[in-house]
Amino acid sequence: MDFNNIIFWLSNLGTLVFAISGFITAVNKKLDHFGAFVIAFVTGLGGGTLRDVLLNTDVAWIYDPINLYLVIIGVILAYFLKDRFSRLRKMLFLFDTIGISLFTIHGLQVAQKYDLNGFYLIIFGVITATFGGAIRDILCDEIPLIFRKEIYATACVAGAVAYLGFEAIGFSLVLKTILSCAIIIVIRTVAVIKNYSIPVLKEKV
Amino acid sequence: MDFNNIIFWLSNLGTLVFAISGFITAVNKKLDHFGAFVIAFVTGLGGGTLRDVLLNTDVAWIYDPINLYLVIIGVILAYFLKDRFSRLRKMLFLFDTIGISLFTIHGLQVAQKYDLNGFYLIIFGVITATFGGAIRDILCDEIPLIFRKEIYATACVAGAVAYLGFEAIGFSLVLKTILSCAIIIVIRTVAVIKNYSIPVLKEKV
Amino acid sequence: MDFNNIIFWLSNLGTLVFAISGFITAVNKKLDHFGAFVIAFVTGLGGGTLRDVLLNTDVAWIYDPINLYLVIIGVILAYFLKDRFSRLRKMLFLFDTIGISLFTIHGLQVAQKYDLNGFYLIIFGVITATFGGAIRDILCDEIPLIFRKEIYATACVAGAVAYLGFEAIGFSLVLKTILSCAIIIVIRTVAVIKNYSIPVLKEKV
Repeated sequence: MDFNNIIFWLSNLGTLVFAISGFITAVNKKLDHFGAFVIAFVTGLGGGTLRDVLLNTDVAWIYDPINLYLVIIGVILAYFLKDRFSRLRKMLFLFDTIGISLFTIHGLQVAQKYDLNGFYLIIFGVITATFGGAIRDILCDEIPLIFRKEIYATACVAGAVAYLGFEAIGFSLVLKTILSCAIIIVIRTVAVIKNYSIPVLKEKV
Repeated sequence: MDFNNIIFWLSNLGTLVFAISGFITAVNKKLDHFGAFVIAFVTGLGGGTLRDVLLNTDVAWIYDPINLYLVIIGVILAYFLKDRFSRLRKMLFLFDTIGISLFTIHGLQVAQKYDLNGFYLIIFGVITATFGGAIRDILCDEIPLIFRKEIYATACVAGAVAYLGFEAIGFSLVLKTILSCAIIIVIRTVAVIKNYSIPVLKEKV
Repeated sequence: MDFNNIIFWLSNLGTLVFAISGFITAVNKKLDHFGAFVIAFVTGLGGGTLRDVLLNTDVAWIYDPINLYLVIIGVILAYFLKDRFSRLRKMLFLFDTIGISLFTIHGLQVAQKYDLNGFYLIIFGVITATFGGAIRDILCDEIPLIFRKEIYATACVAGAVAYLGFEAIGFSLVLKTILSCAIIIVIRTVAVIKNYSIPVLKEKV
């Protein structure tokens, strides 16, 4: 198994974990099975979908059924494991964090196929990693969590910037991918452990 | 008038009834005329629009003005009839149910132009039938009704699965369309009469 | 500087002011910096993005970085000026009104590249001008203001209709653009002065 295959499967693991996270959110919102499936679907695939729609290209999951099957597997897993999730929470957090790191770098790499400058590459990496969860929250009638308290997006931006930096230095694909993913994982993990968020802007204007 | 023309006009009747349903929802939310028009528009055409955007093809209503005129007619009808809707509710429900059945099968048939497996055909059928109403609810700041209590989506899935089954058996276009639409209409009507929904998932996780 | 350049820069001024308006809205919703940036982004560029996605064409801001930089500048301006906005309100309202007038006519002109009838041109003008703010409100978990205070959209529709009328008469590009923008600005300003409606930025700023 070469390195590209590893990225491919880790990214798929991200879809799986995001689908599980979406299903759990839907259950907490008392949605029915159909609603929970839709939420799992958009959480796992919504970020990549928005990226592809904006890039005016074919939406990845439509022509790569593995994505669809991963959501279905995620929903089945979540359904049968849902009573045990309080114990699984740390593992879910770990998978989720790995997922966003891979999604960020994968989204950036997809955008690199187009003639776009670095700002755009960062934006498409962050969109891929974060908008699945944002659409999940909109469908559940909440202000997206990512806009309110997590260091989530900042970690993605930092990782994407680092990736471009490593690329400018001339690091290999393997090295720049591993290092930038590691940066995202470390920032997010440390932030959550220290219960830190980027500051809410002053309310009074 | 051949069979394709009948599908075409029944599908258009679906757009019309969905536009009326959107307008009524907007009025109940105390939106103004512009807001009510937009809600009528997205309810009638939002599902097909999302389908076409995801398929990266031309959005149907942009190049087929009949859809647009049907929304306008629906809004005008809803405006003048809105005080009588309590009496018209059963008729609206009937039209609405016919509408989703036609939208499901029509959406599936549109997706068949692409090289997609059965899972996708079902998904695009359901998206076409249900996301107009879902976008309506998001714009009105509610969790989409379809995620919460109606048998709506399940009926669409059942009809789409049946269509593919009839196709595998070798039924004619006319027969498989009529039968699968009938399945959707019957499931939904029976479910509403018996006040049945697919169960809400347990809240405790 | 010829007339097309003036339209270009006034349209960009619209993006800038919309970005500022989005940032302020986000601050009032207690979003963090990332959330405020995203809201500024979608407020400034969301209307044009939806237009381009529906038209199945390349999204303008992806291939024209000036739009992106304007959002960044708008965010920086809003950040440093946010304590002074109570005094700047009238100026913001003026820019915002100029912005929607230019966005309406610019969106209509973009749609004219396609073989669409007048109804569609009006719709795409109004989508360009209003859906940035609508997406902002959806992300902030509110029913879009524009669906509730109708004079906003009505002014855009009036301006778009007038533009098509002036075009039918044979007015020059300069003349029909200036006149139709003036109509939007006057309708909206008079409506606000007479308290038919309140401007977006009036809430709590």
